[in-house]
Order: sequence, then structure tokens, then C-alpha cells
Amino acid sequence: MVPETLDIESLRALYAAGELTPVDLVQEIVARQEAASDPAIFITRADPAAMRGAAEALLQRAPQPNSLPLWGVPFAVKDNIDVAGLPTTAACPAFAYRPEVSARVVSRLEDAGAIVVGKTNLDQFATGLNGTRSPYGAPRSVFDVSYISGGSSSGSAVAVAAGLAAFALGTDTAGSGRVPASFNNLVGIKPTPGLLSTTGVLPACRSLDCVTVFANCVADGVAVRRVAEGFDNADPFSRSAKPTSLPSRGLRLGVLAGAERNFCGDAEAEQLYDAAIARAGKLGASIVPFDYVPFREIAALLYQGPWVAERLAAIQSFFDAHEDEVEPSVRAIIAGGRRYSAVDAFEGLYRFNELRQKTEAIWAEVDGLLLPTAPTTYTVEAMMADPIRLNSNLGLYTNFANLLGCAAIAVPAGFRPNGLPFGVTLVGRGFQDDALAPLADALHRASDAGMGRARTAVPDRPAEAALSDGRCRLVVVGAHLSGMPLNREIVALGGRLEATCRTAPDYRLYALPGTVPPKPGLVREPGFAGPGITVEVWSLSEAAFGRFAQAIPAPLGIGKIALDNGTAVSGFLCEAHAVAAAREVTQFGGWRAFVAEGAAS
Amino acid sequence: MVPETLDIESLRALYAAGELTPVDLVQEIVARQEAASDPAIFITRADPAAMRGAAEALLQRAPQPNSLPLWGVPFAVKDNIDVAGLPTTAACPAFAYRPEVSARVVSRLEDAGAIVVGKTNLDQFATGLNGTRSPYGAPRSVFDVSYISGGSSSGSAVAVAAGLAAFALGTDTAGSGRVPASFNNLVGIKPTPGLLSTTGVLPACRSLDCVTVFANCVADGVAVRRVAEGFDNADPFSRSAKPTSLPSRGLRLGVLAGAERNFCGDAEAEQLYDAAIARAGKLGASIVPFDYVPFREIAALLYQGPWVAERLAAIQSFFDAHEDEVEPSVRAIIAGGRRYSAVDAFEGLYRFNELRQKTEAIWAEVDGLLLPTAPTTYTVEAMMADPIRLNSNLGLYTNFANLLGCAAIAVPAGFRPNGLPFGVTLVGRGFQDDALAPLADALHRASDAGMGRARTAVPDRPAEAALSDGRCRLVVVGAHLSGMPLNREIVALGGRLEATCRTAPDYRLYALPGTVPPKPGLVREPGFAGPGITVEVWSLSEAAFGRFAQAIPAPLGIGKIALDNGTAVSGFLCEAHAVAAAREVTQFGGWRAFVAEGAAS
Repeated sequence: MVPETLDIESLRALYAAGELTPVDLVQEIVARQEAASDPAIFITRADPAAMRGAAEALLQRAPQPNSLPLWGVPFAVKDNIDVAGLPTTAACPAFAYRPEVSARVVSRLEDAGAIVVGKTNLDQFATGLNGTRSPYGAPRSVFDVSYISGGSSSGSAVAVAAGLAAFALGTDTAGSGRVPASFNNLVGIKPTPGLLSTTGVLPACRSLDCVTVFANCVADGVAVRRVAEGFDNADPFSRSAKPTSLPSRGLRLGVLAGAERNFCGDAEAEQLYDAAIARAGKLGASIVPFDYVPFREIAALLYQGPWVAERLAAIQSFFDAHEDEVEPSVRAIIAGGRRYSAVDAFEGLYRFNELRQKTEAIWAEVDGLLLPTAPTTYTVEAMMADPIRLNSNLGLYTNFANLLGCAAIAVPAGFRPNGLPFGVTLVGRGFQDDALAPLADALHRASDAGMGRARTAVPDRPAEAALSDGRCRLVVVGAHLSGMPLNREIVALGGRLEATCRTAPDYRLYALPGTVPPKPGLVREPGFAGPGITVEVWSLSEAAFGRFAQAIPAPLGIGKIALDNGTAVSGFLCEAHAVAAAREVTQFGGWRAFVAEGAAS
Repeated sequence: MVPETLDIESLRALYAAGELTPVDLVQEIVARQEAASDPAIFITRADPAAMRGAAEALLQRAPQPNSLPLWGVPFAVKDNIDVAGLPTTAACPAFAYRPEVSARVVSRLEDAGAIVVGKTNLDQFATGLNGTRSPYGAPRSVFDVSYISGGSSSGSAVAVAAGLAAFALGTDTAGSGRVPASFNNLVGIKPTPGLLSTTGVLPACRSLDCVTVFANCVADGVAVRRVAEGFDNADPFSRSAKPTSLPSRGLRLGVLAGAERNFCGDAEAEQLYDAAIARAGKLGASIVPFDYVPFREIAALLYQGPWVAERLAAIQSFFDAHEDEVEPSVRAIIAGGRRYSAVDAFEGLYRFNELRQKTEAIWAEVDGLLLPTAPTTYTVEAMMADPIRLNSNLGLYTNFANLLGCAAIAVPAGFRPNGLPFGVTLVGRGFQDDALAPLADALHRASDAGMGRARTAVPDRPAEAALSDGRCRLVVVGAHLSGMPLNREIVALGGRLEATCRTAPDYRLYALPGTVPPKPGLVREPGFAGPGITVEVWSLSEAAFGRFAQAIPAPLGIGKIALDNGTAVSGFLCEAHAVAAAREVTQFGGWRAFVAEGAAS
């Protein structure tokens, strides 16, 4: 009765139809936990009676099905995030403690009706991208037990992919919320740093850590992220800012080029990456090969620069006393933090800012990046034989993102012949979390990879974030058309040409006498049946639109112009008095045609 | 013939009248330099022949007086900023080098017509706020030679206050661009970090350093800053962002309260601070006592935390080899940078962010801060007897600003009975540099302190920055008037009522049939002599204006409306076709009067 893949839309449908209750679902989860073939997924499972109690309490608090945003939605929590009453181990038994208060994000999700099913395994102290660095065992890819799950949020990804939770919380410093999504055919939502509170989360690199969401599809992940996010003044790195938008179409998407296409010898991964690029192109993105070098150099700073001292700072008193009880690879990395002086730390900051400044020039050319989530994958055996070098390979395309304050969404991107999945990540600038979602969703759907182990088809529902890109449309008629004297004003404001089209037939166009440069006036006359006037639709940010509209001199102004496609879009109108003595030029069908005939003086 | 105070407006007037040429002025500057009573102002004076050559080259390049923004304006440069051909010493002879290329800011100013008159003394390596830490001597306050000039930009401030330059460049990490302004009756413009390039500037704390402007008045300082600023991709900390605005009136101004009013026992300073607060209130600001504690704790981090390692990082190879040649107080501070580990650096960053988060709550309550620039001043003798502790006192109200990314403008605020000046600083958030200027200018004028040593009256010209607060004006005519059904739309967007006024007489008002809620249409008919229509002027941010204008349905739109005061302001117009069948209500003189008579259905 309960499908293997616990995507939220399907659960809500079952709840709405009365075919399932939260109490039923937690019973099912318990059964699945007990039957699960991979013993390394959870470090601590929630007590079945406690889960049942939470489901019953939800029914008391909100009896109506789906009356809360995450009503009865089961989720798993990475074991470096506090859940009151369950131990937090960070995959280090000697470090374990039992928190009395849940992390802020956990509380927000529970308040919205979600139910914790357990604490999941991880690379110890969230230090790693592979999933083998834990005394609780190495979770495996749900597609092949000889392969790594990815890490550090190993158990969280496997739990969702195997149908043991509808979503899971992870954390991500270097790529821990993205790489395991890629290896288990899931979506990994890595929010802008600071968007989700880290209060109650054990730091890895405190200045960079993000709480992330593993989900079956983009819509689920965005919905969970929106519930979990929110400013928290107890978190020194919490930030609130207005979301920034991206173009609704014609997105300029940076892709790897030349020597920076490094798949560590994995030709199948490269083919799958090329296929994802081709899908993005078909979806309307403009594909822009870009120079990955400064991003790669920033990525290298995370483990080869002073930021490793943050890992030491996070647990220094424990580490100094219990170094021997730390997993050997993790120990070597954290101990490395002792080598750096404050001068080194600031010099690392300077080097980072030099590289960041180089990336700024690239961001001027692209709206987002489409990257392999990981260049390749490895067997558990191979990883354990060469644990530092192969782990570094996994972070080649993820490590830079939090240093640069980026938002990212990892999505499935198809399967290799051997049945292992591949994933790509869409990376945007800070606070473009919502703006990335529509394309991420479309890329996931177009890949036909489906969701999780079962490869269930993505529910036929657009991602909520697809609703708006936040930009204003402006119809330009005359001197602001492309190539005309005032077009630079719109370009300078960040305007983008979205379309060339035609007005409804009831507009007349006039050449305004005495204007410099020559300008037309567009006036609507209901009932008039003319040719329609050729116009361009540009888009601007709200602020740019405001500045532009503010500066328009009389007799021109901004009103709504009816287009021949039936929509009404903001654009240039003219006060009627100003055309009383003007020459009508409607018959040219547009200002450009009129000017081309040398008719404008 | 040349006034003692070389404010730019006066120079431009003399140039425009043909009463002065740049060649005359550099001759006068040379004579003043030779006659100056304080020998410690300059470390290197520009060669008189070179200055004359620069003035003559300017006349070749731009013969027309005032044909460049800083045409023939003489300026001094702090000796940690490179000027090609002059040595850069940072007040440490052993460190001196002769740069081949000028700092980016210097080039920008010279391109705009300004002429370098010399390199000024400073606290060595810009480490200090007092002006006594230099082997080139201690510049003195222009008002009393027994008192310190303030530092570290000591010579720059004294040069402007003594009429040896029209403005001067300083740098500011802890307060070096503000404290010396205060002690010499000048304006100190401390831009948002990253707004002015630091390419060619010797770092103090590279992540925090700002280039600053010492000027006689706010208008001069803002004009210079606007020429000097601009994104520089060679500077890793260069930032570009859109200026943010502040309310044009009713600014909420945070002032010190309770135990945080610390003037180090200087009751006269406290009285002068209270007088400045009173003036701000009379100028329309809303005075808000606030909790300075988190700002004070951030201020303390700058010298008592790991940021001192930045000072070491800036000159480490020199310092390791030549420590003995460094001024003793400066040496003790810089050597302190060796004590900190990278873990300490990151822990300092965490502590800073905890405190920063506390300041966020305060910024929600205030638009800006009005603080004493320095709590008190000292004699040179007292300072040299207790150089570390008294220096710390000077930075009590300045040290926090660059860590928090603030913009600040220090302005004169009157004189003590002994003739020494006092200053206050207006502090805003990043990129509010322009927004702070109008109030800073008004505070300076209202203080009657005048400019520099001569206390010359501030020219009767509003600061250029006063011209715009970055908000858009919107004339509303009907349903958006205060109290009308759609007014909440404007209020929700952060709109503020600025004025109620009347249109020019050539507008007709119509009641648009079938609109819900009832709406009028305003149409201009040149030549028509009606009563004028009563309207309201609201202001909105550009983004809010854009969003609002974007949402207006046909037949209404936004155009320019001529008001009876002769200005043209954006506002609601109506397409003429829509009023063809509408009832004219012009005779009511406004929509509110028409509605009040129950005439609208």
C-alpha cells in the first residue's frame, strides 16, 4: 500500500484520500528499518513507541490531513545535528552527548508536522565526502553494495533513497549534501550559507557549514527548505536577505571546458555530463563554456589551506584529549589544523579573495553553473585503500561553493551501463535558492532518472519555486529598441531582451515632433484595427525598472500595453495631447521600419 | 588673494572668475609649505617644478577652467599610498621604496585634474590613532601645538586644516581617517570598505583597510570620494554594490546612553556631544538611545584579537629582518601578531560574528549612529608617556566600523573653551555613503564650527549628495491617496508620504466608469486652465517603485505630472481613450473632495 519512494506529494495524496495515516506510516517505517539490508544507515533509530507517539500527538494537534506543511512526513537527521532525547555522536562514540534541545531546523520541521525517524551515519565529524570514515560502518550506494554511498551525509542519503524517510537533513561544508545525493539518485538542496540556522549543529568549518535537504525531487526539497529556513539570531552566521532572481528563460549556464573537464578517467561520467548539458540546452538554457580554474583553486583551499583549522577549532578540547579515538583519515586532517598561524589564516583569506575576484568576472558572463556533482565514484574497497586522494577527487566540483556563498541544487542525471547513477549540480549565487529550482526540476524530469532506488517517476507537478523569477517586463517601442540610441540605458540597468513581438491592433504610432533622439508615441484607440506595432519585451530587476520608469520624461510614461498574444505588459505609452500635432506612422508597423526608411528626422 | 581655506567651491569660483590659475595655486602651495610652522606634516613634498609641470600639463589637457571634476585642485597623499616618483615610507625609513606606479585612487584623482602636493606623515605603518608614532616627528593639532594631531593620517589632516591642500587622502582601519579630522576641525569621509581601491596602498589590516578623504566640508569630501571610487578587479577586497538609501526625513539616529557614554573624564566633550545630538534633533532626526556594548566589544577585537596578525602579514619579511628599526609601540603591536594561531583567528571570527549578529538587532531600530568621533584628546606629552592605553581610548567609537563594513562621515561639532575642536561621526551601514551625506552636511553647518584652522564658514551650497536620497517620488491622485482603499499597497511597499500638493492647471480629472474601487483618470490638456488637482507625493525605493509601476493595470500608467511648483514628478496618468465616456470631475479640485461629496459610486 505504501509506495517504496516516499515523496511528499504521494504521501499527501494518500493522506488526503484517507488511505494512510501518520500512525500507519511510522509503523511501515519501523518495519522497513528492521528489514533494511544495509545496517550502517542509522547510528540511532528513533524509538518506535516515540515515533508512534509523535504521530498520535500530530493527530491531536492537527487532526485534518495535510493541515500542516509537512503533516506526517517522516525524516531522518544526520547525526551531527541535535535531536532532543537522541544522542549526537558525529560518528565518534567517544564524543557522544545527549542534547536536551533539538537543533533549530529540526524544531521548525517538527512544528510543521514532520516526524523524526532516526539519526543517520556520517563520515566522522562530517570530514569526508565518501561515507567510509565511520566506526558505525560504511553505508553503501543503494544501487550496488560494493560502491560508496558518498558522504559525509552517507546515512541520510541512503535512508531517503531506500524509502526509509521522505527526506533527510544533511550538512554540507565541502559537498556533503550533494555528493551522496548524486550516488543515490536523489536531489540535494544545498542552501545559501546562513539561510538555515546551524544552532544545534556540530560545526565542521563553522564559517562555511550549511544544513541541507536530501529529497526525492526538487519540489520536495524546496518545500522542506522553505520550512526549515529562517533567520536565527542565536546563529552568528545566520543571514537574511531577499531572494535574488534569475532569467525565466535564456539562462546562461556555465559548463566545464577543455582541461577543466576532469572526470578522473571516467568516460561514462563525461558522457552523462554531456547529455545533461544537451538537455539543459533543449530546455532553453544558453550553454557557456567557462574557465573553472579560479573555482578549482578555491576548492583546493578548503582542505589545503588554513580552513582546516576550523575543524580543529570545532572540537579542540575533545581532540586534544582523545585524538587516538578519532578515525585515522579524519584525525590526520583535523591535526593538520595545528600547523597554521593566524598570519596563515589571513593570507589564506587574501588568496581566497583574489580568486573570488576572478570568479566575479565569470559571474558577469553566466547566470549559473552546471557541473558534475562528482567526477566519478569508487568502490568501498578502492576508497579505503587510498582514502585521502580519492576523497579529494570527489570534491573537485563541490568544494568551492560554500566559500563563495553559493546556492546549489544537485539533481539526478541518469545511469551508467552498470546501473550506478550520475548527478549534476546547478550552482547559483547566494540567495538564488528559489531561482535555481525551476531549471533543477526540469533537468531532473528530463533525465528520466526518476527518484531514489526505485527510480519512481517524478510526480507531475511543477516545483513550487517555478512560479516567479522576480523580474519586471517592459515593452519598448522606439528609441529604446535594440540598436537604437537609448537602448544602452536599458542595457546599463541589466536589462535583457526577452522577445520581439507585436501589439494588439488597436494602437496608433506617432512620430513625436521635436524629440531628440527622435521618439515615437504609442496611443491606444479601442476599436481601431491597425497592423499592430512591432515592439520588444525587455526584462529588468524591480529596482532597475523603478529607476528606469522614474526617469521617463513627459509626455511619455509607463502603462500596460496589450500584445497580440493576449497579454498586457508594462511599456511605453504617450499622453494623448502630445500626439495631437504629430505625424501618424502606424502604417510602418513599427518604429524601426519607420526609421529605416529615413523617415525620422 | 588665495583664501587660507582651500575648499573646492571657493577654488572653482576663483578659477571661473579668472582670478586664479592652477599654476598660481601651486606657487602659493609651495610658499605655504615653506612657511608652515609644523615641520612634521610632510614626509616628502612634491618637487615645486613637478607641481608646476602638472599644473601646466593640466592647462594643456583641459584648458577650460573647471572643465574636469577636480580641475587644478591640490591634494596631499598619506605616505602609505603610492605616488609614482615619490618614495613611499609608511613613516619607516628602513622600509622605504620608490613606486613606479601610483595607487589606483591617486591616478583617478589626477585624471580628474587634481594635483599632488606631497606625501604626508603618519603613525608608522598606519598603526595608531594619535600621530606621535613617527620618526619624522609628531604633527600637531592646528589649534594648539601642545596637542596631538590624531592619527594615523596625521599629516593629511593637518595639511588640509592648515590650507596646504584642498583635500588629502588618508587610510582608515581603526579610525585613522576620522580621529585626525576631529582634532583639526575637518570632515573625514570613511567610505564603505571596498568602495575605493586599495591597489597601491600598503596594507595595515588588508581585509579592513579603507582609503579616506579629509576635506573642508561634506560636499568636497563626497565629490572627491565619487571621483576616487570605483570597482578594481586587481583589489581582492574591491566591491561594487548599489548605494542604499536612508529616509529623507525622520532618520532614526542611535546615540550613546548610560554607562556607554564614556568620555574618559572629559566633561567638555560630553557637553559638545549632547549639543550635537540636540542639533540633530532640530534637523528632524529621531534620537534613539541604543546599546553600544556589542559595538564596543567588536571595537576591542581589532587590537585585542587575531586581527593584529594582519598587521604582521602585511610586512612580515621586512619585520622579521628589521624589527629593531620599527617604532617601539608599533613594534610591540605588530609583534603581537605572532602569538595567534589559525584556530585563534577563526575563533576571533566566530566571536566577531556573534557580536555582529547582536548589532543586527540594533540596526533594525536605528537608521544611523551619531557618535563622538573620539571621546577626548591628549597632549603630545601625555600620549608619549602612556602610548598604548591612551591610543586605545581614542578608538573607542571608531574601531568597530570597518569590521562591520560601515560607511562613516566625521564632521566638526564645535569647540571647547580652550579652543580645541570636537567632532562627531555619523555611521551608516555599507553603501550608505551617499545617504549619510545630507545629514552630515547639515550637522556640520549647524555646528558653526566652520572649516579647518581658519574656521571659514561652509560655502552656502548644499552637499551634492543632498540632491538625492535614492528614492523615487510618486504622485498619487485617487484610490492610492492616504486613507483611500488602495493606499495600503503603497504603505506595504515602504512608501512614505512626502507632501500634499497640486498639479499645474492644465490637467482634467475624470471618474473612470466601472472601476472597483472607484478610480479617477488624470489627463493633461495643454492650454486648459483649471483649478489644478490636489495630489499627494509619496516616496518609494527604486525597487518598490518598480514593483508598484509594474502592477498598474490599463488604462492607468505612470508618466510625469507637472506640479504647480514647476517640477515634474512621476505619477498616475490615464490613457486618453478611457476617459472618452467618463464623467469629468475636474471642478472638485481633487479625488478626495469628489469622494467626500458622495459623488463616486
